[in-house]
Formats: sequence, structure tokens, C-alpha cells
Amino acid sequence: MTRTVISSASKEVTIGFDQPFCIIGERINPTGRKLLMAEMAAGDFSRVEADALAQVAAGAHMLDVNAGVPLADEPKILADCVKLVQSIVDVPLSIDSSIVEALEAGLAVYQGKALLNSVTGEEERLEAVLPLVKKHGCAVVAISNDETGISEDPDVRFEVARKIVERAMDHGIPKEDVVVDPLVMPIGAINSAGVQAFAIMRRLKEELGVNSTCGASNIGFGLPNRPSVNAAFLCMAARSGLTSAIMNPLHETEVAAVMAADMMNGTDANCARWLARFRDPEARGSSGRQGRRQGRRRREDAAGGV
Amino acid sequence: MTRTVISSASKEVTIGFDQPFCIIGERINPTGRKLLMAEMAAGDFSRVEADALAQVAAGAHMLDVNAGVPLADEPKILADCVKLVQSIVDVPLSIDSSIVEALEAGLAVYQGKALLNSVTGEEERLEAVLPLVKKHGCAVVAISNDETGISEDPDVRFEVARKIVERAMDHGIPKEDVVVDPLVMPIGAINSAGVQAFAIMRRLKEELGVNSTCGASNIGFGLPNRPSVNAAFLCMAARSGLTSAIMNPLHETEVAAVMAADMMNGTDANCARWLARFRDPEARGSSGRQGRRQGRRRREDAAGGV
Repeated sequence: MTRTVISSASKEVTIGFDQPFCIIGERINPTGRKLLMAEMAAGDFSRVEADALAQVAAGAHMLDVNAGVPLADEPKILADCVKLVQSIVDVPLSIDSSIVEALEAGLAVYQGKALLNSVTGEEERLEAVLPLVKKHGCAVVAISNDETGISEDPDVRFEVARKIVERAMDHGIPKEDVVVDPLVMPIGAINSAGVQAFAIMRRLKEELGVNSTCGASNIGFGLPNRPSVNAAFLCMAARSGLTSAIMNPLHETEVAAVMAADMMNGTDANCARWLARFRDPEARGSSGRQGRRQGRRRREDAAGGV
Repeated sequence: MTRTVISSASKEVTIGFDQPFCIIGERINPTGRKLLMAEMAAGDFSRVEADALAQVAAGAHMLDVNAGVPLADEPKILADCVKLVQSIVDVPLSIDSSIVEALEAGLAVYQGKALLNSVTGEEERLEAVLPLVKKHGCAVVAISNDETGISEDPDVRFEVARKIVERAMDHGIPKEDVVVDPLVMPIGAINSAGVQAFAIMRRLKEELGVNSTCGASNIGFGLPNRPSVNAAFLCMAARSGLTSAIMNPLHETEVAAVMAADMMNGTDANCARWLARFRDPEARGSSGRQGRRQGRRRREDAAGGV
């Protein structure tokens, strides 16, 4: 049974087919968040701090940290963010950048065994990132595209994933430290995006035996009622073999979806985690908004017996 | 490609792997609804009428009609309900009873091709119900239990389903007119209920090639935040091959879940049905409660970009 262990200085998280689905908070990422981007560029990390605390409080098991600010000193900003986030929360981090120097800077200050996000199937990238992964003994997200781009053929994307896993093993990185991202496209633009992704996820589990992750929110891009789109995708993906996702833990609908999927998949024994979270919302110290939502759901349930 | 066609006097609904998931409204059923039971026993069908209209307005493609009132004249009540419901809504019905005479009475007044709910794998029941199905040319729900009860072994439940399908064919009923109910247990009581159900659903699709349905709300029985439990189950079931469910269309969370699952499974071309329902909730003439809910979701989406 494949188990990917990621850690901070004080906490371990295991990603695996026999484990609860791993929620990786997506919020610390300036892409599409103008205000956060401007603040990060100016060295103001107050929102990063708030996002870190809120996501962990909402149920994130790990946090993704991305500092992709154009024209800024990304390696420095990413390293600063990694240090800051590790100083205020104890969950392990995914260090996220498309710039190898930034990944290196983040790893240099990280305490524990990080998840490095990411390597692709492109030759140059493989040979730049995999030695870093080996050197630091971390795990890595393997994105299933290469020099030819992102194929719409799930079999081609699967073969790219297989190539990365094999190359990682050539570098002495164990298979369980490669977490494949099958790449999720917006369903509003590519109607077959769901079927494609589920097909790859199933093969990743059954044929390669590797863990997987994805940027789940991408599926609902541009659609109304996006949290419900993302929630359905996450449940179906969890059924197809996906073991973690970079997602928004502040969307209660999505967190409930993956937690319910855990019950369905048999990774929440006696529904203990579900009951702890939802049985007594008032006792959970949840935010007012969450409390009100759950209160309303309960009233609906009670009304069901009329 | 298996297609089960059910109809009323004026409307056809097709259940199939290449079709949108078929939502069968569960509300017209006195089980666990004391007030409705008392009213039905007294011949007051005002709540039946209101439930029929509300469920269709909320998106039900079919309605289940059950009149299981102990010590009452169930055949007469069921026939009266079927007539009443057919006089006010145009969706096809599932005629639901454990009493063969009631099924017969319902079928006698039904206009169109009904879904008869249900036959089991019990010898006596098979030989009582299947001739009725053949005589009326209707479709039938086949529940995968027999004289030995409900097995926890999905392979045993699958074999019961296979037996019913084969027996139906012996009676001259085409395979596409048998819709198998794999039986869904409460996940709070039987932790493997999800995995069991999904395993049977996959075999029903891939090996028997038959459509399937289930009482979906059963999965979340006794758990808090039940609509979210049911929603996750429905998405995962739809991914595993389930093509319809007897469920509560008044739970927006559950309807959104199956509609999003349709997008993921490629049965909502261009996301047209999703957009029609969620793009402009104010234009939909939805109830105030639904309108407010959707309004809140939209604000959340807008807030996502901060």
C-alpha cells in the first residue's frame, strides 16, 4: 500500500489509498488575487498569515505556499512565506513554484519533509528538479504534461506520469514520494475534463500504484455555484483513486464532500471524524457563518419527518 | 446501450448510462412521516398534492408514490394517489408497495408505462410480480435480496440481481425494463455500505448492463449533515454506474450533486442544464429559500478573488 509521508517539524501527514483524503489548502497563492499579490510584492504577509490560520482551522491537513509575483524576487518571497507559515501553523507544506530557484529557496528554509510542487515531464525540468528532491529527501508533485503540452488523451497524460515516476526512481527517489497531478481542466471549457481525469486517476492507482493530487478548483472555473461543482468532482475523484487535492478548505461544501467521501471509501472508521465535525457544530468553535449553515441544515433534517 | 423508458400519458423519461441521472422524488411515502400517514389513512391527500408539485418544481424527473399505511386499504389509497398525482403533474411515476394487490391497483389506473417498485429475489414475489410486469408492459425495480435476507457480500447481492434479471427475461420482460436496486445500508451502522454498494453498481453496469436505482437517503440515516452525506454518496454512485435514485429533490445540495455529476460524467452537454439552473437563479422562479441560498453561494464565489 503506497504511503506518502509529508512532515513539518512536529507533524506528519500520510497520503494513501487507506488514509483519509488529504486536503491541501490552496489559498496562499497570488494567482488571480490582486490584493494579495500587491501585498506580497510589498513584503506585507498579513494576509498570508490570516489565510494560513483560517485554512488550518477549517480543516486543511497541509498548505500549499505559492509566491508567484511577477517581476518580484520570488525565491526570497517564497522562503519568507514558508518560514512565516511554519512559525504559526504546524501542518506540513507544499512548496509551490514554477521557478527552480524559488523551490530551492523554499526547501532551504523548510523544517521537515516537504511536498515540492512541482516537476513536469519536460526534460529540462526533470533534470533540474529531481536532483533537488533527492538531495532534500522530500516528496514531489509530478504534473502530467511535457514539451508537447497537455494532451486531451488520458492515455498520453498517463504515459507522461509514468515517465516521471520512472525517472524519479532512476534518481533514487522512491515511487511513494512521487504524487502525480493528472491535470484537471475546467469542465465548462472541456466537457470531457471529468471523464479524462477519472480515467487517469484510476490508472494511477491500479497500474502505477502512486498517490495523486490536483488543483481541484480548476474544474469549476467560470461556472456558477462553483463549490458544488468542485464538491461533486472531489467525491467522484476520490472514488476514482485521487488521494489528495489542492483545494479551498474555506468552502464548507467542499470539505464536507471529501469528508463524506472518506466515509464512503471506508477511511473514516465509525464515521468518527464526520461526527466530530458535524454532530455538535456549536461545540466546534466554528466561525459564525459555518455555525449558521450547519444550524440551517439541521433544521432541514428535522423538517424531513413532517 | 441500455435504455429504460418510463412514461406518463404525455411525457417520457429515459434512464441510461448516456442520459442525465434520473431523480425520482421520494417524498410521497408515509414511512417515518406520521402526519402524512394519518392524513392518507383519513383520505386527505392535500399533502400528497403539495409534495408532488414541490418535487417536480425542484427538479424531480419522476415521482415515487407509496401508500404504505398499516391497517388501511393500501390498494385503494395507492390507486387514488396515483390518479391524483397524474392529474396534477406530468412526470412518470414509480408505483411503490410491498403488497402485490396494491401494485396491481396502482397499475390498473396508471396512464403510461410505469416503473413498478418492486420485485425481490424471493420465489413467491418473483412469480407474483413478474407476470404483472409482463401483462402491463411496465418496467420494474429489482431489489437484490432474497429469502436469505440482505447479504453484506456484494457478490451475493449481485448474484441475486442476476437471478431476477434472468427470471424477468424468462417471463418475456426485456432486460432494459429491469432496474436493479443494489440496496443501500446506512453508512453510520455499516461502515462498508458505500464500498459494497459501489462494487455492485459497477458490476451491474459492466457485467449485467442494466440500469440501477436505490433509496439514496438511506445512506445518511442517523448522521448529522445528512444532505451532504447523501450528496457525496450520489456523486460516487453516479461515477460507479448508478443511473437513477429515489431521493429528496427538495434538498438542493443533493440535486446540485447529481447535476454536477452529470457534467462530470459527460451527460450534460456544454453544461447547458447546469447553467440553466444556476446561472441566473432569480430568473428561475425558484422558491425564496433556494433563491437566498444561491445568492449566498454567488457572493462566496465573488469573494474568492480577494
